[in-house]
Amino acid sequence: MSVDIAKSKDGKGTAKAGGAEAKASNAVGPKSRDGRDRLLAGAGRLLAERGYSAMELRDVAERGNAPRGSIYHHFPRGKSQLAAEAAALDGERTREALEQALAKRGVKGTLRLFADFFRRQSSRHPELIGCPVAAAALAHPEDPELAEVATRAFASWEEPIAHALEIDGIPAKDAAAFAALTVSTIEGALLRTRAAANHAPLDLAVTGLETAYDTLKERTIPDGDPQRSV
Amino acid sequence: MSVDIAKSKDGKGTAKAGGAEAKASNAVGPKSRDGRDRLLAGAGRLLAERGYSAMELRDVAERGNAPRGSIYHHFPRGKSQLAAEAAALDGERTREALEQALAKRGVKGTLRLFADFFRRQSSRHPELIGCPVAAAALAHPEDPELAEVATRAFASWEEPIAHALEIDGIPAKDAAAFAALTVSTIEGALLRTRAAANHAPLDLAVTGLETAYDTLKERTIPDGDPQRSV
Repeated sequence: MSVDIAKSKDGKGTAKAGGAEAKASNAVGPKSRDGRDRLLAGAGRLLAERGYSAMELRDVAERGNAPRGSIYHHFPRGKSQLAAEAAALDGERTREALEQALAKRGVKGTLRLFADFFRRQSSRHPELIGCPVAAAALAHPEDPELAEVATRAFASWEEPIAHALEIDGIPAKDAAAFAALTVSTIEGALLRTRAAANHAPLDLAVTGLETAYDTLKERTIPDGDPQRSV
Repeated sequence: MSVDIAKSKDGKGTAKAGGAEAKASNAVGPKSRDGRDRLLAGAGRLLAERGYSAMELRDVAERGNAPRGSIYHHFPRGKSQLAAEAAALDGERTREALEQALAKRGVKGTLRLFADFFRRQSSRHPELIGCPVAAAALAHPEDPELAEVATRAFASWEEPIAHALEIDGIPAKDAAAFAALTVSTIEGALLRTRAAANHAPLDLAVTGLETAYDTLKERTIPDGDPQRSV
C-alpha cells in the first residue's frame, strides 16, 4: 500500500521504517546504509509508479541519488533483489503502521487514517498512485520470488486487521474474511484511483468497507450492548 | 475482470461478445473481422498477463494468429488503439455478463458465478490470471486514454450491481458504495490470486463480500420479512 504514516500532515501517525530495513542493512556501515536506503526508497517508488517490468536500474540510481554502480554493491543480485527488498520493506512498514493505528484507533479509525493518507498522496500525483507490493504481485510469473514477497506482505496486513476484529467481538471466521476483503478492496481501489486520477473510487470503496464493518458489528453485538457504538 | 461466462463449464452462463465488438467492426467484412477479433482477443490476454508496457505487438500478432502487418491495417494507431479497444471490449463483455447474471441469479448468485469462473481460470494458470481493464488502469500516466477506458469500464460494472442492490431494497447510497466495494475487491483479489498462484485470496475476499451483503440486507430488511432469505 506504500504507507509512511509518519509523514502524515496531521502528525498523529507514528509508523517508521522497521525490522525489514534494519535486517537488510546489518552488514553495512551507517554511510553506506544511507545509500542503500535511498536506493530502496527509489526502487519502491518506481515499482509503484511503473511496475516491475518497466523499473529500470538507471532510474532507481537517479531517484536514489546514488551512482548506478552502487546498486550491485548493495544488491549483488541486481534488479530482482532490489525489488524484493523494496517490496518487503513497504510491506513491513505498512504492517507496523496498521498495527499502531489499530491499537490506537480501532478498525474504523484505521480505515479513515489510511484513506486520508492515500487521499493526500493522490492529491499530489493521482496518476502515479500505486503500491510496490501490488507491483510485486504482478511480477508473477516473471519473478516468482518477488510475487512471494507480495503474498507474505498481504498476509502480514490481514493478521493485525483480523486480530483487531476479533477483539471487537467478531467471530474468527468473519474476521478473517473481512480482513481479506479490506486488503483486496484497498488494492483494487488504489488501482482505480490511478486510472481515474482522482480519489473518488477510493472514497467510495472505503465507505463500502465502513458500512460493511458497521453492519457486521451490529449483527455481532446485539442492540443495547454498550459497546455497540464503538 | 476478463470474463467470458459463455465458456463456463456449467453451461449456465450465456454472456457473449457484445456491442463494443460489433461497433468496432462496422467498417470491415467478415473475414477481416475475424482477424481483427483475433488480434483483439490476443491483445486482451497479453494485457492481462503482462501489462501495457510489456505488451508487444509481435506477440499480439502471434497470439492472434495474424501477420504483424495486419495490426496497422486494423488498428492504424497501433498499440495504443489495440489496447484501448481490447480493454473496452473486455469491459463491455463483463458488463453484459454481469447484467445477465444479476437478472437471473441476484447479487449473491452473481458473486458465486464470477468467483467460480475465476477459480476455473486460475486453476489452469494461476500465475497468469489478470484483468485487461486493470492493466489499462495502470497505464496512467503513460497512456491517459487507455486509463479512461478502464475508468469507464469500472463504472459500467458498478451500475448494474448498484441497480440490483436497490431492487433488493438496499438504499441507493449503500448500494452505490457496495457496488464500488465489489468491483475494487474483485480487482484486488485477482491481483492477490496472481501473486499467490492459487485462488485462496479470491475465495476469502468473496466470502467477505457475501457476508457484507448478507449483513447489509439483514439490516435493510427486518427480521420476519419473507424476502429476508433471498
